Amino acid sequence: MSDQLSSAIQFAHDERNRFLSELINWLKIPSVSTDPDRQPDMAKTAEQLADKLRLIGCKNVQVFPTPRHPVVFGEILEAGDQAPTVLIYGHYDVQPPEPLAEWKSGAFEPSIRDEWLYARGASDMKGQVMASVFAVESIHRFGKLPVNIKFMIEGEEEIGSPSLTEFMRSHKELLACDVALNPDAGMIAPEIPTIIYSLRGLAYFELRVYGPEHDLHSGLFGGVVHNPAVVLADLISGMHDSEGRITLPGFYDSVRNLTHQERIELARLPLDDKYYLDRTGAPALWGEAGYTSNERVGARPTLDVNGLYSGFTGQGSKTVIPSWAMAKISMRLVPDQDHNDVHKQLLKYLEEKAPKTVRWELIPFSGGPASISDINTPATHALYKAMKAVWGKDPVYKREGGSVPVVADMQEILGIESVLTGFGLPDDCIHAPNEHLQLPVWYQGIDALIHFFMYYGSKS
Amino acid sequence: MSDQLSSAIQFAHDERNRFLSELINWLKIPSVSTDPDRQPDMAKTAEQLADKLRLIGCKNVQVFPTPRHPVVFGEILEAGDQAPTVLIYGHYDVQPPEPLAEWKSGAFEPSIRDEWLYARGASDMKGQVMASVFAVESIHRFGKLPVNIKFMIEGEEEIGSPSLTEFMRSHKELLACDVALNPDAGMIAPEIPTIIYSLRGLAYFELRVYGPEHDLHSGLFGGVVHNPAVVLADLISGMHDSEGRITLPGFYDSVRNLTHQERIELARLPLDDKYYLDRTGAPALWGEAGYTSNERVGARPTLDVNGLYSGFTGQGSKTVIPSWAMAKISMRLVPDQDHNDVHKQLLKYLEEKAPKTVRWELIPFSGGPASISDINTPATHALYKAMKAVWGKDPVYKREGGSVPVVADMQEILGIESVLTGFGLPDDCIHAPNEHLQLPVWYQGIDALIHFFMYYGSKS
Repeated sequence: MSDQLSSAIQFAHDERNRFLSELINWLKIPSVSTDPDRQPDMAKTAEQLADKLRLIGCKNVQVFPTPRHPVVFGEILEAGDQAPTVLIYGHYDVQPPEPLAEWKSGAFEPSIRDEWLYARGASDMKGQVMASVFAVESIHRFGKLPVNIKFMIEGEEEIGSPSLTEFMRSHKELLACDVALNPDAGMIAPEIPTIIYSLRGLAYFELRVYGPEHDLHSGLFGGVVHNPAVVLADLISGMHDSEGRITLPGFYDSVRNLTHQERIELARLPLDDKYYLDRTGAPALWGEAGYTSNERVGARPTLDVNGLYSGFTGQGSKTVIPSWAMAKISMRLVPDQDHNDVHKQLLKYLEEKAPKTVRWELIPFSGGPASISDINTPATHALYKAMKAVWGKDPVYKREGGSVPVVADMQEILGIESVLTGFGLPDDCIHAPNEHLQLPVWYQGIDALIHFFMYYGSKS
Repeated sequence: MSDQLSSAIQFAHDERNRFLSELINWLKIPSVSTDPDRQPDMAKTAEQLADKLRLIGCKNVQVFPTPRHPVVFGEILEAGDQAPTVLIYGHYDVQPPEPLAEWKSGAFEPSIRDEWLYARGASDMKGQVMASVFAVESIHRFGKLPVNIKFMIEGEEEIGSPSLTEFMRSHKELLACDVALNPDAGMIAPEIPTIIYSLRGLAYFELRVYGPEHDLHSGLFGGVVHNPAVVLADLISGMHDSEGRITLPGFYDSVRNLTHQERIELARLPLDDKYYLDRTGAPALWGEAGYTSNERVGARPTLDVNGLYSGFTGQGSKTVIPSWAMAKISMRLVPDQDHNDVHKQLLKYLEEKAPKTVRWELIPFSGGPASISDINTPATHALYKAMKAVWGKDPVYKREGGSVPVVADMQEILGIESVLTGFGLPDDCIHAPNEHLQLPVWYQGIDALIHFFMYYGSKS
């Protein structure tokens, strides 16, 4: 181990309490990008990150405005032209904290219980962003970084990164690099270092069904008007067949089939049905006929209802026929599906199935393509070696079910591959109440990133 | 016209502004029976009514406590043993005002616009209760009432009258009477005086479907767990067949079929499809195959979803698999269905249809039987004559789609028929935002009730 590497690791170990305290401080700002009322908090979160980047020695730190939430940039280009340049991607925005009543401690009042830190964004992904920052800080403390690094931390990931592609297109020179490091993925389990090589895409919609002009008394009108909540249920119910397949016309046409080799590799993952049962607490698993759980999550498209609303949802009873009903519906996509095509497929489905007794409206939200990355690159090899050094075992390669559309966008716009990692775990309750971060794994993650930057630099 | 009748009518006309102002005052109290926080308002509403009954000359005025909300009683027994006794039934509780944002003026800040009074409870049924009170006041001002009257005004109708049957059982002597006057029904249109002779029953449930133990990230777990909102949609969707018939096992077994004569009578009602379209604003009508709209509303059972909730319902997008989903589901019943049987039928349906990938729970709320009343009684004839005197035309007889379980309960417990009337209109938005009362019709209603009490008394 080089002097700089061992010094950096020692420093990172000595500073763990401070790192934790800085993370907690940042988690207290409710950076909910989807909520217009959180605009000032978003700005504050970005500024606080920019200040931190300046403190660790970043140059050219800028908070770039976008139509909604700014992109934070900073760089340390001391390694010279011959050394590789890593673009560290992350996001400082978080999911909405609702339902608030289900949090055991405040979503924005970080709380440590046993070895876990509870707060919205702890795992997804303020914790991951800060792990990268602290890794750079630890190395830089003891001399020049062996790689050039650039931070690009956005504030719109949880709303589909609407400004990022335009930002990348208009700042290609500023962002020029050899590879992106994206710690927005995660590990299979605390003891299994994981490298993600494929991600699913996303298509997200709000479907509204309108019936009568106003809520009606179900006694006076029950029987003559089509209940929009019932129509919505019919439409949702028809989106899957009895085999768990999605029925939108043409939905599977561009789905890339799993190769025999991939199915063998996915079967080797240390993730069995018990793993999924334990982590979800569902009474039983479910899914598309003909595929294993790992295949269903990693390599097959899915359709979920993310929210439902209609009529009276309070305590007790109210005998209305609601005037409208709403569902949030999203699909996880796999190569080579296109979210714009999925939009058209859903429209076609609705045009065919929705009865004339209601009006309907389909509002498209964010969407993004799936991606598969090349795993035979120096950066991936450096990450593999770094993880092995920290965990003492070979990492696994995994196709991930989540969506990080920026990976495909970077391939297209910047012409670079992403190295996907991260130190969150499947049961961190991200996007859910009581999101948490397993601190020992997070500390190991900082160590792994220190190793990664050092190894990747020494290879050049 | 007798002196007392003409004096009473003149008085009622002269006092319209005061009547309106007293009604407005009473409407300002948010007597939402389903909301535990409104307990003090419920008590205040009851006390204010009791005070008014004392003012118009009622004796033995009492506010009887029940496990939830009190029953207000008062009587004027000056007509003598030979005169008939009318039990005036009503309720002072109202539906919840939600969704608040859709009200053009506050639900409990009564507002007059043109000839309508807007407030929760204006039509259903504080306005109807006060119409009865003002009618009695107007007659009593000019001498003894020609009928004995008893008021029984409950505070739990909108939550299914859980205490009223026990109250009636334990106060049979106090409530002894010849007939009940129930102004909780309504008119077909402002110019069509209406007498209701049949009501539908009600069975109301909350169905909860539980999937994973907590909300999950739809990327990490989409494809392996059954989405509870999708399962709920499947279950709801399966409750109707393609003909609009309800599929619960045995649901139609005890439905009394319409006779040929009844179908002819219902076809004569001045309510065509345009009437239902105009009053609902639905794009098209819908319903059980083989029946007309009047039959569907008045004489056939129906199933409606009154509310839906699951997952994320805020603005924008959130990619969760919700841990649970909920629907409020209620059926309107016709003779001779029993709401306890319907509960069993729904349980059986769920046991057969719900997949093992979820848990579910069915919470029964209020329920009550349907009823058909004898229309050949002196009280009904008096009402017929009273309405004809005010509107100048023959009233129509109608089977009503709403539910007033107290009618069947009074038949059973007190051995009396109910005369069903009321001066609300189908487009009053009862149970919905912007509930309103058409004031000219309400004033006519007071006149009609004055005539009714005078005619019914003179027949004895």
